[in-house]
Order: sequence, then structure tokens, then C-alpha cells
Amino acid sequence: MQAIKYDIKPFLDENFLLENHAAEILYHEYAKHQPIIDYHNHLPPDEIAEDKNFHDITDIWLKGDHYKWRAMRTLGVPERFITGEASNSDKFRKWAETAPYTIRNPLFHWTQLELLRYFNISALLNPGTAGDIYAQSSEMLRSPEYSTRNLLRKMNVAVVCTTDDPADSLEHHRKVRSDDLEIKMLPAFRPDKAILIEQETFVAYLHKLGQAAGQEITSFDELLQALENRAGYFDSHGCRLSDHGLEQAYAAPFSRKQADEALQKKLAGKALSTEEVQAYQSAIMYELGLIYAEKGWVQQFHLGALRNNNSRMMRQLGPDTGFDSIGDFSQASALARFLNRLDSEDKLAKTILYNLNPRDNEVMATMIGNFNDGSIRGKMQFGSAWWFLDQKDGMEKQLNALSNMGMLSCFIGMLTDSRSFLSFPRHEYFRRILCNLIGRDVHNGELPNDMPWLGEIVKDICYRNANAYFGF
Amino acid sequence: MQAIKYDIKPFLDENFLLENHAAEILYHEYAKHQPIIDYHNHLPPDEIAEDKNFHDITDIWLKGDHYKWRAMRTLGVPERFITGEASNSDKFRKWAETAPYTIRNPLFHWTQLELLRYFNISALLNPGTAGDIYAQSSEMLRSPEYSTRNLLRKMNVAVVCTTDDPADSLEHHRKVRSDDLEIKMLPAFRPDKAILIEQETFVAYLHKLGQAAGQEITSFDELLQALENRAGYFDSHGCRLSDHGLEQAYAAPFSRKQADEALQKKLAGKALSTEEVQAYQSAIMYELGLIYAEKGWVQQFHLGALRNNNSRMMRQLGPDTGFDSIGDFSQASALARFLNRLDSEDKLAKTILYNLNPRDNEVMATMIGNFNDGSIRGKMQFGSAWWFLDQKDGMEKQLNALSNMGMLSCFIGMLTDSRSFLSFPRHEYFRRILCNLIGRDVHNGELPNDMPWLGEIVKDICYRNANAYFGF
Amino acid sequence: MQAIKYDIKPFLDENFLLENHAAEILYHEYAKHQPIIDYHNHLPPDEIAEDKNFHDITDIWLKGDHYKWRAMRTLGVPERFITGEASNSDKFRKWAETAPYTIRNPLFHWTQLELLRYFNISALLNPGTAGDIYAQSSEMLRSPEYSTRNLLRKMNVAVVCTTDDPADSLEHHRKVRSDDLEIKMLPAFRPDKAILIEQETFVAYLHKLGQAAGQEITSFDELLQALENRAGYFDSHGCRLSDHGLEQAYAAPFSRKQADEALQKKLAGKALSTEEVQAYQSAIMYELGLIYAEKGWVQQFHLGALRNNNSRMMRQLGPDTGFDSIGDFSQASALARFLNRLDSEDKLAKTILYNLNPRDNEVMATMIGNFNDGSIRGKMQFGSAWWFLDQKDGMEKQLNALSNMGMLSCFIGMLTDSRSFLSFPRHEYFRRILCNLIGRDVHNGELPNDMPWLGEIVKDICYRNANAYFGF
Repeated sequence: MQAIKYDIKPFLDENFLLENHAAEILYHEYAKHQPIIDYHNHLPPDEIAEDKNFHDITDIWLKGDHYKWRAMRTLGVPERFITGEASNSDKFRKWAETAPYTIRNPLFHWTQLELLRYFNISALLNPGTAGDIYAQSSEMLRSPEYSTRNLLRKMNVAVVCTTDDPADSLEHHRKVRSDDLEIKMLPAFRPDKAILIEQETFVAYLHKLGQAAGQEITSFDELLQALENRAGYFDSHGCRLSDHGLEQAYAAPFSRKQADEALQKKLAGKALSTEEVQAYQSAIMYELGLIYAEKGWVQQFHLGALRNNNSRMMRQLGPDTGFDSIGDFSQASALARFLNRLDSEDKLAKTILYNLNPRDNEVMATMIGNFNDGSIRGKMQFGSAWWFLDQKDGMEKQLNALSNMGMLSCFIGMLTDSRSFLSFPRHEYFRRILCNLIGRDVHNGELPNDMPWLGEIVKDICYRNANAYFGF
Repeated sequence: MQAIKYDIKPFLDENFLLENHAAEILYHEYAKHQPIIDYHNHLPPDEIAEDKNFHDITDIWLKGDHYKWRAMRTLGVPERFITGEASNSDKFRKWAETAPYTIRNPLFHWTQLELLRYFNISALLNPGTAGDIYAQSSEMLRSPEYSTRNLLRKMNVAVVCTTDDPADSLEHHRKVRSDDLEIKMLPAFRPDKAILIEQETFVAYLHKLGQAAGQEITSFDELLQALENRAGYFDSHGCRLSDHGLEQAYAAPFSRKQADEALQKKLAGKALSTEEVQAYQSAIMYELGLIYAEKGWVQQFHLGALRNNNSRMMRQLGPDTGFDSIGDFSQASALARFLNRLDSEDKLAKTILYNLNPRDNEVMATMIGNFNDGSIRGKMQFGSAWWFLDQKDGMEKQLNALSNMGMLSCFIGMLTDSRSFLSFPRHEYFRRILCNLIGRDVHNGELPNDMPWLGEIVKDICYRNANAYFGF
Repeated sequence: MQAIKYDIKPFLDENFLLENHAAEILYHEYAKHQPIIDYHNHLPPDEIAEDKNFHDITDIWLKGDHYKWRAMRTLGVPERFITGEASNSDKFRKWAETAPYTIRNPLFHWTQLELLRYFNISALLNPGTAGDIYAQSSEMLRSPEYSTRNLLRKMNVAVVCTTDDPADSLEHHRKVRSDDLEIKMLPAFRPDKAILIEQETFVAYLHKLGQAAGQEITSFDELLQALENRAGYFDSHGCRLSDHGLEQAYAAPFSRKQADEALQKKLAGKALSTEEVQAYQSAIMYELGLIYAEKGWVQQFHLGALRNNNSRMMRQLGPDTGFDSIGDFSQASALARFLNRLDSEDKLAKTILYNLNPRDNEVMATMIGNFNDGSIRGKMQFGSAWWFLDQKDGMEKQLNALSNMGMLSCFIGMLTDSRSFLSFPRHEYFRRILCNLIGRDVHNGELPNDMPWLGEIVKDICYRNANAYFGF
């Protein structure tokens, strides 16, 4: 046995994450070459429109990455080197000091995989290699080959769907379309600011939305008109998805009249009761659902984040800077009621449910089965492991829950959900994990050794299911 | 290493799910030949009473199986081929098209294992094999060897406990008993309809129950009399268990007077407040608990399903047709209060707790320890993985939680909970998984290599614990 | 393959729990020899002060161990042999009968590991070996080598932090310090009785606390003075930690006035409303947090136990006798609000969060990231798997959640939380599991084969992080 014990697999080699031959075949022969449809991310459209080059690796890698920021803060790195006034090279150096301490966190794999795939750098990032890596990668980034569009091409990206406010002009999407770019950059409709009536910015937002729609918003009906108008505008720009980031689905009893009264009260500067908030939010979610169904869109729900937990840092840095975490909200009953209300009127759009707390995996994996009605293959989707769950363990749990309680074969697969142009190797990471799970079952005699069949399913999950589902 | 990497285990061979020699020994030498006590299922008693033969494999396999229905709906198969008017052979063909897409779902293993064990068919079910499999299995099913009783004999079944309404006449159970069948078919008492006071059918049900008990039910006291009467009747037919399918345990404060008032109000056609519902349901659960304790029965609680989520399909097909899912109700506090109330009066019957949400495994695994008091070995049981959890991953999680937080050795083991006569290989499936977990620990040096000892524990869990526990 | 299949690892050998060579190196070369800082336990200070010897193994092993009691009750052992009047040797015999039935429970490993490490006994405990083991171990226990201090020395313990009531005189801690013992025994401050205002003993406790502080407690201000006084006293005895065992964090809105009114009402013998309880508990938790921050202590929160579920046994045996279980309380929102309130005033002490329900692992693992602000390395800690989770599976889940969602490298590691002087091999158990997880990743090519680097991180987690964090 000693010989076997000592047989240590090289780190990050071509069979990374593939633990047996069946897994290797599935990945290399079926998964690897599929194009990428990144149907949900937060890439900045302007940077694709202008085909931007980045100044250095700090600029593209550390500037907006709250995963790395949290790691650095945990290690005791002062904020100056994270979001503060330190130089780009000093910030990079601090990240290089942190990187070796991120072992077993996805950051460790992401870091090395991104260095390898984009820059062909296989050295481990640490203080000893930081200088060379900074210099080499930054020089490459300044070359035309590393413009945003070329970064996407390098990863075989076919489609990216950005996440856009209904009030957005979509000018950058028009620019890209007018350039006849072979990569589709499509908008996605994220109307959270019109839903979350308790936020301080709500009234100002309605004003902005009204301007975008060319109308006043003084009532619930006018709000719906404006949203419908903007959805039409998005649709005409190729939008096929909406997205919502909510603690829970809202499915309280409501009438349009109640929703209107709540809105009027808010516009008049008065405070709303919990019931009024619930009624409004339930109403608007329902009405939005009707719009999506009518347009044939896919609606996405990202449920369960507990956001902005650190007021001190919120005041200093604003939202989305690394102070959010996983909540433990109830999900099942309200979500079922919400979906059922739309379904019972035959107005339930194709839907993707994402949960942030992995304890809800099984709720989501079985919820979709309640509304898969034979009308469309995989109409209801349990979305890929999201945010904190976007790592090997989180992905395996999502894939296993979906497999055991639903149909893995109908899954539309991975998305980056990222703000960074360097995140696309996460699709490779996902594909390796997917192939490894299926390959492991073959290896262990839990699936038939029928590679051509299993390979087709792998291709479906990596590309073809999403392609058919969204109809871009 | 390459040689090892390539050593792919054959699918579904005699060592299916057994990953090392210790596991193989435990399964083949200790588990395999134990009789089956299927102490909770939904087999139709009439079909055993009449020793029915099925017309074809669609009749026995697809007719009532909402697992398969959900899979087909997810793949986009129209309802006509699922519960609709399509022919049996067309329905089978649609299932055969679906089966290969169920990889990694328990349906895939169940399908092949059932074909193999009952019909000796080892071909993979798919469109290419569908015709032959349909013909061959259906022909066999029409032969006397494949009557319901012979199907049970083929699987070495010693006892089956059906699930019966208190108003049931138990005529089929009497018929089977009068036939001196060597397989015991015993009733189990499931009084959900007398508990769920909010259901539309409640009042009509009380009438039916009163008729069965030969009395009127116009008060809470009379309801209890009727239930006690029927429990006595069931007991005289060999019943040893009750069962309850509830979202949560009910343990609100209540008095018999409150319960009576709620019942009167309901009988008078008035709506009940949440408090009244809670008081009634808490009262009746408590009173039923007293009846079970008095009779020396085992009480079962299946907790946490979120049922009938799709109103459109509910209207079309009724309940139990594949539109239920996993809920995320709170369980711990109310369950503890409910059990404690009975225990503190020394009236806590032997109890099996089943949870549908696996996130509650640890709550259940530790809850039982609160009421195991040395009086009876394994008095409180954490029931085997149920419904959506009845698959390898779900079973392993249940077995591991029970092992780590309780006493695996005292476990009463598997049950099918199935409506189908072809589901008994799930006991084999469970036994293989059980033996593999123990065998893996031996293999890894985490348990002593003492097969005779471990084999006795395996036998206990497969058969002897249940046999002693229920005292059939 | 057969050769490999048959290669069964010996039980509990030197490579116990280490499944490959990388894991072996990490454990034997880096982890094994680190001293133990047991920063949270329930050892009785008087037994260290007097350097007590135990009468026999029942005395040290079975007397206070509710884990073993629950196992025995589950197996059907009468209470007489557990907490009752049976002789020590009879009690040991009953435990020896139970032990073989605890396979796959941590008790099985703990039992054998403790026999091996303390008494050099490798025989499996069972009825056949019980007599010899009882005689041999008990004789050893009566020798000076097995005094409490020598038991600690044998395990290379550097620091133990006991858990003490604020009213405690700390006389035993003073005695140990005056003996110049090379092992530090430090107190920890556990003011639960001053928090849980609904407990029957609350008013009597305030009286006791006032006496210890040399003052009256007739108001919330006086209570805070008394607590501050006692915290100062503890601090002067080397205390560096507080601890709280609560169902949830309390973070309701409150004013000091409300808290005072609730306290006055309680002192006047009146019942409190839920809001008053919440306000009081939220206020005192906040005020205690200020005290800890001011002193530079670490605050610990053990969240989520559902205690004293069995009233019948509570009446008979009192608390902490084996009738507690895992609750399913909400944790995230209130915990975030509680921590944020302190943080936003720059008064958040170093904090360790422990959850009892493993479904909350990810909530805790991400919650700490909200308040790690770069000020101190690993300021916020997700505590090691606690109580029912203190086993291989529970530890692996905690370590994996922490790894995937935080920084494993900054973890302060293991503690026993035990009442027993024989529990220290749990540190070895933890270290083996830790080394195995990291070693597995190396073996599988998921971490670089850089043993010196990984070994340093292992040393950090086993000893150096805790040493730096607490500053004993």
C-alpha cells in the first residue's frame, strides 16, 4: 500500500479535480470544449463596449473583489491596502501575502487557475513570487490581446448576460450590438429597487425610473406601466431574463388597491406598517411575474442573503464591499404560494431559484418539481451554487440535491455571477466537478459505463440545455 | 496508478454499493438473507386480499408512482402520457424515454434493481429496450408466480403494515388473516383526517368515523370515544402502530374545553382562529398519544412535508400526484413539548420520528435521546430516510446523524413507505448502504475488524430490532 | 484489485484517521507535539487545586458523563446503573456492556482512545474485558502519577480555562497560581444566570452576585456595577474569556430604562412580558459586550441548545444530565444586529461563535466575515464543533464550512468543553482530522505538495493561533 499512499497527484494538473479515468474522459472529451453561456453576471457593460484594457492586475483582480477583501481583513490586513489609498503594487503585495493563507478556500484555486489560464503563470502566488507575477501579468493586461473582449474570447464565451437596472439606457449594449461582436452581450432586468419599498432610496428611484420610461409615477398602476415599458425596451435589446435579490419570496395576501395605498403613503413620506410593506412587495412581485411570463422571459430569484451587516463599514464603503452573509430566513411556504399564484393563472414564467443557505438546497430541489408540468423541459430550475456556495463543496451539494430530488440531466448549469473578467475559469471548475461526480459513480459501479450517453448529458449541462432554455 | 484508475466496477453487480471487502462480507453473510419487516407502507390491502395479478408493467409500475411522474414532467413529457388517457404501452414508452435521463436520481437505481430482482432483466431501460422489457415483464406479471402475494414471497417479506384510516372496515386484513397467509399483513392507524380540523373534508369525515364506530360525534369527548373504539378494533386486527403526516408537532397550550369549543364551532360551520386550530390539534394529538401508550403501540410522526403546492394540478388530479415538496417548518421546540407532556405523565408510547427536511436530521437524532429513559431498548427511534430522502445520500445522512448522535445499533431500520409491490428491493438498497458504511469504517481502521460482532449488529438493524420492537 | 480491497487498516493504530502519507506527515511531524491550550472546558477547579486522585475509573469516567448516560439509556440500561445507587463496579460493567453497541458514535473512539492514551490499554472494552480494565485502570488512577495535574501533564496541556460563575470566589484558581503550577488554570466568566431573567433562580442569583461584589443589586445600574466589579476581579485572576450559553443572541430594541423596569418588575415578583424579557436580555448582553471589549477579553457564544426537555428526569436528576438536544432557533438576523451594535461603537470584543445545529454552520462561517475588519488576525472566530457535533463528521463539516467561507489558517482550533480529566485525547482526535483533511487535498492534487508551508498552518491551528489570540 505504501506505493499507493505516496502517489500524490500534482497540484492543478490537466486532471485537476478528476479523480478517475471515467471523470477524465467526461471532462476532456465532452465538457472542455463546450462554449460558455454566462447567463448571469455583473460584468460592467461599458468595459465591454469600449473593449477596455486594464492598467495592471490589481485593477482587474482586486478592485471589486469582496471575496479577496474579506480574506485580507480576516488575516489582519489594514483597510488601506484593501479599499484604501495604498498603491496598486502595494495592494497586490498584500494580496500575495494573503493568498497562501487561503488554502482550502475557493480563492486559492481561483487565484492559481486564473493565473494559469489567462497568463500562463503556474507559480504559486506568495510574497516571493509577487513581484514577478505583478509585472508579468500587468504587462500582458496592457496588450491588446488582453482587452475585455479578448479575455472573453480566450475563454470561449458565447453569451454574457449582464445585470441591469430597469432605468438603464442600455447604451453600452447597443454599442456592442452595433459592433457586430460575435459574443452576445445581453441585458438582464433587475428591478429590486422598485420592489424594496423600505429602502431610503425608493422614492428617488421611482423618479429615475419614471424618467427612463418617459412618464410620471404617482400610483401603482403607473409604476407597472413604467416597468412594462422598460421591460419592453429591455426585450427589444435582446433581454431574456430578469433577476431579483431578495431575502425571501413575498406572498402575503394583497390587492392592487392595498399596493397602491402603500405606494401613495410612501410617496407622501409616511412610514409603512409591516403589512403594508408585505402587501406592496407581494403585489409587485406578482405583477412582475406576469410581465415576465408575457414576454417569455426566464425569472431568477436569488434568495436568502443577509446584507449590509456592518454599519460602520457601510458608512465608509457602501454596499457590496464584503459585509454580507448567509441568512436563515424561511423560504418554502411563501415561495410555494408565490409560484402557485402565477401558475394557477397559467402565468408562471420559466424560473430559476437560487438559495444562499445550503440548508435550503433540498427545499429548492423539490420546490421546482411542484411546477414542472411537462410543458417545457426543465422549466423550473434549481440554480447553480451561488456566492459563498460557489466552491467545490457547495457545488457538489447543489448537484447532489438536484440529482437526488430532481433531474440533473435537465440542468442549465453554471454562471459566474461575477464582476470580474478573470472569473470565467469558474466554468471549467464547475465542469470538472460535474464530470467528477458522474465519473465517480461510473467508477464505483453506480452508473453504467456508457461514456457516449453520459457525455451527451454532460454536454447538455455545460451548454446545450442553457442554449435551448434561454433561446438567445 | 493507471491500472487502478481504469478498474471500473461493473454496474449493479453482486457487490453493488459495496466498496470494499469488509462491506461485502457484512452484506452477503449477514444482511442479505434477513427477512423483511416492512412496518410502514401504503400497499393496497385489497390487492393482497385478492392476490391480484397485474395486467402489465405500466399497471404495477407507473400507475401510482408520483416519483416517476415528476421525472417525466421535468423532462417535458405531456400529462397525457403520465396520468392521462394514453395507452399503457405508450405510457411505458414515455417512461423508457425518461429513464436514461434519471441518472443520479434514485429512480435510475430503483428502475434497474426492480427489473433485475423481479424479472431478471439486466438490460438498461431506454427506448431501444422498451418494447422487449414491456412485453417480457408484462407477460411474467400475468402469470400466477407474479401475484401480489408471490411478489412479497419473492422478496422474503415477513410482515407488511399498511396505512389505514380509522374508519376503515379492515375487511381485507380479515380476509388475509383468514387465509392463514404466512406473511403478516397488519393495519396501521392513521387518524390525520380527525386531526386536521381546517381541511374542508373534516366534518364529513367525522360523520364517516362516527358511522364506523357506531355512534354520533357531536363533541370532543365523543370524538375521542370513537377514536378509542376504532383503535380497539384495529388492535384486535393486529395493529401495532399509528402514523401521522403533519407539518409539525402540535403542542400549544390547550384544555379539553377549548378543544371541544373548537370542534363545536367547526361542526356549526364557523371559521376557527389560528389559536383554536392549534388548541384543537394539540389536544387531539395528546389524547391520541394516551391511546397509543395504553395499547402499547408504536406512534409514528412524519413531519415536514409541504403538500399540494400546485392548485392547478390539484384541481385536475387530486392529492398525492407529485406536487408536494420539502418544507422548512420549525420542529424542535413543539416536538419536545409534545413528547414531554406525554412522558411526564408516563404515557409516552414508543415513538418513531421521521423528518422530510434533512436539515432536521440532527434535531431528530438528538430529540430521541431526550426520551430514551432505559425502559425499553431503542424506545425512541429516528426513522429511516423518508420520501425525497429515500436515496443513497439521504440514507447515509440519516445513518450518520443517528450514529454520531445516538445509537445506530438500536435502530429498527428500513421500510418502503411505498404504494408499489415492486418497491421491496429498497430494503436491499438500504442494507447495502448500511453494510457499506460500517464496512468502510472497518476498512479505514475506524472500527475493529470484528466481523462476527458487526455482523450481529447488521442483523439487528435489518430485522431483529424491528421484530423485537413491534412484537408482531 | 482484490489485494487492495483486502488491505484493512488496523483499528486505532498510529495512523488512526490519517488516510494517506501527506496526512501522516502533517500529523506526526507538525501537529502531534504541539502543547494543548484548552481554552474552554468545565473542569472542576477544586480538583486541580487539591491535585485530586480518583477512586476508580467509574469515578473519573462515568460520574458526570451525560454522553455515556444517554447511550446506556438508549440501550435500555436502568437508571440505577447510570446515576443511581448501583456500585461503581456494577456501573462500570453496564458501561462495558454498552460500549460495543456504541460503534460509529464518538463514544466508541473516545473510549478506546482514552484507555490507550492514559492507561496504555488497547483491549476493546466489552463484558469480557470489563473486569480487568476496571481493576487495572482503577489501580493506576489511585497512584500519584494519575493525579489531576499529572493527567494534564501527560497530555502536554499548557493552559486550561474553566467556566465560572461571576459570583465565584476563584479560591481554587488562586491556590493553583500560588502553587506556581507550570500549567495555567485560568477562570472564564459565564454570567448566564444574570441574563436569563425568566429562570426561577434569577432573583436569588442576583442576591448571591451582590454579595460577591459587596453591594446591593436593586437596579439595572447596580447589576452592571456588580458585573463590572466581578469582571475586574476575574481579570485580576488572569481571566481572558467570557462565555454564554443561549438559545439565540438577543438583539431586540431596548433602552436602559426598559431594562431597569423589567428588572424592577422581576425583583417585585411580577411576571414579565415577552417584550420585557427581550429588552432586558438584549440590554444586558450589550452591556456585557462593552465590559469585555473594555477589558480586551474574548467573548464566546454557544448558541442553539434546547435544554431540559424531559421534565420527569429534570425533577429527578436536575440539569445537564443528558436530556438536552439540538434546537432549530433562528440565528442570523439577531446575531448580526447584536454584533453590529457593538461594532458600530467600536466596542466589539474578539468573539467566538459556536452553533449546536450544524445546519447553522454556514451562517456562522459567513457571519464572522462581517466583522473581521483587519484590526486583529482572526478577530472573529467560528468555534470548533461543539457538544453533539464534537465528532469526526461534525468537525469535518465545521472545518469545511470555515475553509470554504472563511480562513481556516486563522482558526484557533480545538477545546474539550468537557467536565472530565480524561477528555484531552479529543485534541489528538481533532488534530488527526484536521491533518487528514489537508493531507487529503494534497494527495488529490487540490493543494500543493508543500509540507513545510502546510505544516506551519497546522501548527498555527493546533497551538500558535490560540496562543496569540488569547494572550494568556
